[in-house]
Amino acid sequence: MKAYNELSKKELQSLKKELEAEYEKVKEMGLKLDMSRGKPGKDQLDLSLPLLDALTSDSSFQCEAGVDVRNYGVLDGIPEIKRIISDLMGTTPDHMIVYGNSSLNIMYDTIARSEVFGVMGSTPWCKLDEPVKFLCPVPGYDRHFAITELFGIEMINIPMDENGPDMDMVERLVASDAQIKGIWCVPQYSNPAGICYSDEVVLRMANLQPAAEDFRIFWDNAYAIHHLYDDAKTILNIVEACEKSGHPDMYYEFCSTSKVTFPGAGVAAIIASPANIAEIKKQMTIQTIGHDKINQLRHAQYFKNADGVREHMKKQAALLRPKFEAVLSTLDQELSGLNVGSWVRPVGGYFISFMALPGCAKRIVALCKEAGVVMTGAGATYPYGKDPQDANIRIAPTFPSREELEKACRVFVLCVKLASVEKLLEE
Amino acid sequence: MKAYNELSKKELQSLKKELEAEYEKVKEMGLKLDMSRGKPGKDQLDLSLPLLDALTSDSSFQCEAGVDVRNYGVLDGIPEIKRIISDLMGTTPDHMIVYGNSSLNIMYDTIARSEVFGVMGSTPWCKLDEPVKFLCPVPGYDRHFAITELFGIEMINIPMDENGPDMDMVERLVASDAQIKGIWCVPQYSNPAGICYSDEVVLRMANLQPAAEDFRIFWDNAYAIHHLYDDAKTILNIVEACEKSGHPDMYYEFCSTSKVTFPGAGVAAIIASPANIAEIKKQMTIQTIGHDKINQLRHAQYFKNADGVREHMKKQAALLRPKFEAVLSTLDQELSGLNVGSWVRPVGGYFISFMALPGCAKRIVALCKEAGVVMTGAGATYPYGKDPQDANIRIAPTFPSREELEKACRVFVLCVKLASVEKLLEE
Repeated sequence: MKAYNELSKKELQSLKKELEAEYEKVKEMGLKLDMSRGKPGKDQLDLSLPLLDALTSDSSFQCEAGVDVRNYGVLDGIPEIKRIISDLMGTTPDHMIVYGNSSLNIMYDTIARSEVFGVMGSTPWCKLDEPVKFLCPVPGYDRHFAITELFGIEMINIPMDENGPDMDMVERLVASDAQIKGIWCVPQYSNPAGICYSDEVVLRMANLQPAAEDFRIFWDNAYAIHHLYDDAKTILNIVEACEKSGHPDMYYEFCSTSKVTFPGAGVAAIIASPANIAEIKKQMTIQTIGHDKINQLRHAQYFKNADGVREHMKKQAALLRPKFEAVLSTLDQELSGLNVGSWVRPVGGYFISFMALPGCAKRIVALCKEAGVVMTGAGATYPYGKDPQDANIRIAPTFPSREELEKACRVFVLCVKLASVEKLLEE
Repeated sequence: MKAYNELSKKELQSLKKELEAEYEKVKEMGLKLDMSRGKPGKDQLDLSLPLLDALTSDSSFQCEAGVDVRNYGVLDGIPEIKRIISDLMGTTPDHMIVYGNSSLNIMYDTIARSEVFGVMGSTPWCKLDEPVKFLCPVPGYDRHFAITELFGIEMINIPMDENGPDMDMVERLVASDAQIKGIWCVPQYSNPAGICYSDEVVLRMANLQPAAEDFRIFWDNAYAIHHLYDDAKTILNIVEACEKSGHPDMYYEFCSTSKVTFPGAGVAAIIASPANIAEIKKQMTIQTIGHDKINQLRHAQYFKNADGVREHMKKQAALLRPKFEAVLSTLDQELSGLNVGSWVRPVGGYFISFMALPGCAKRIVALCKEAGVVMTGAGATYPYGKDPQDANIRIAPTFPSREELEKACRVFVLCVKLASVEKLLEE
């Protein structure tokens, strides 16, 4: 098949007719498929079922802090779960607070605390005359952008390549503008591009010279252990990098077991310097008496140690790998050589990112929807929902069954073809 | 025994020597007892153990919303748990959001949201030129006061009697000062006085005419179903009272199962008008993807319905009643007629409130501590930790075993006597 941009107008018109006929047939099938959100599949949830039997009425409830986990006490997480998470994340328990079920909630809290109380003695952001700004590597995670938008924080797009954000731009901006207080990063298997930040990017990140003393790197390491293949490459450790660079307080790292055990019923943590941790605890001790220690102990007893989690993640990978490969192979087979888009081949995480021809993303998502396939809204991967190129589409292959996924992919590539032909005919 | 204030100086001096000798003996016992916090006892925690077996790996995880509780989805609580809690609290599910494990956290969130985003379109509190004020019926709950203090909210003491807060004062203040944005209430078995607000107080509360359109009654109904006796009297329903008075949005009610099942591992909820609920959800949908639905389903399956909870609370009462009665009977036996303090006889809740001679509370608590009995810090029941009379002491009888409690009470009454004699000798 020739590349679409090399086809004559006549060829495009005839192709369009074919594709439209095919599309009408698909619509008649009345599909109801969803590739919109990064939700685990039922098989993944079943994998974690034994967790629910790890703590029952005849268990011992004494945690290593000498406290009955069924009662009040222990603000920052029981020692057992802190040890497991800090081993996995390559840090130490004194760098960690374990929270409830949601790392997104910790990020929201971290922004809210900075807005109302400031950061280590800085002016509360809500008291500043000028709006606070955040750097947003794009495409990125819509829920990050929703938090900063809610607080009226101005978001600045930072382009990404296969090594991570454009660090020349990041360095220049943070050094010159004291209103820039943070940068959103998903450094390992980024959402949605699946990119792992290169060592150089992580080191340059840790060596930033921000004009704002209360600048922080918001390091959402959501997919730190979510490798699809055994020979996983992990990114440099931000804690060590920031300590070595002489900026030990410059990052907040976030993680959770939402995509390890159960979304909404796992445990989440913040990793930060002991000075940041002390600052956070001052507010947290007023905010809550403590998080769900029974669930923390349940997780600790089930996994026993970091290796227990790693073994579990291999089983998760075995379920996810074929789904990612199915999407990629459909894209390869159906779209390679057509010059109608590009895609990355992530080796972990939860998403595949598709770059359509400029101006086609919204149309593709709309066509998919009309044919019964829900995709993440076009634009969602950019601040304010505005993709300047209208090109990026996030594919979430985890939730549908393998069979549904294959159907949904067929619809997706058909819609990509149709929208691309429409676009080329406009030009 | 004569009342202490009727004793001659010489009699007091001789009594002081006796009491000091007794106190020295107690100190030698090296006690280590704790009546400081409202923590359930081990027997109460054991009572809820079957909850942990209510959901295991072979359970069904489909909730009535048609969602697998193990996955993302359902922001405001699964229908099963909403129904149980709204039945118990005398309201309907459309008046409710079920959160995570902590009602204190919901209260913090509610204040934080008002500070940053305002209330239904009002100016965010943090943007006001003048400080926001809250009315604080005293003695009250230290953790309420800690939240308002953290946000720099000015707290105004409101005296309480056996019917609740001084409503003349409350009505006058809220009508005249638009900076007054809220009042902290624990209306049923108040913390620490154990008072139930009279029908008149609740009705006057619902009929307040606040100068501030964003004034809210913070109705912490923490002990709504925590009766010690079968013939419990419950207070008027604030939801209905506010709806009838034409102020349907003027309250936020809070509740949790922290003292029903497990503190820190229960479920908590806010009850508010549908208009308030809609407002809260706008922010909440950015703050989190959802709370722990597995734990919500666990609770729903275990209790089945509101009657299941009520039966459970009768068993809790059977464990708590003898503890409350032990404290009260020691106070009666040892202090009646001495004119060294007064106490209320709560028929529910978690505390007994002791009013010592003015100027004696700190000394009593210090004496107790030296003898190995930890009490809630004197002053803690007042805003800023300042009891203007230095008289109130909160007794928390639930956590120690019956035997420990009796020992601790003996120490307490001895310290009351000694501190009172010291005080009378100063005069």
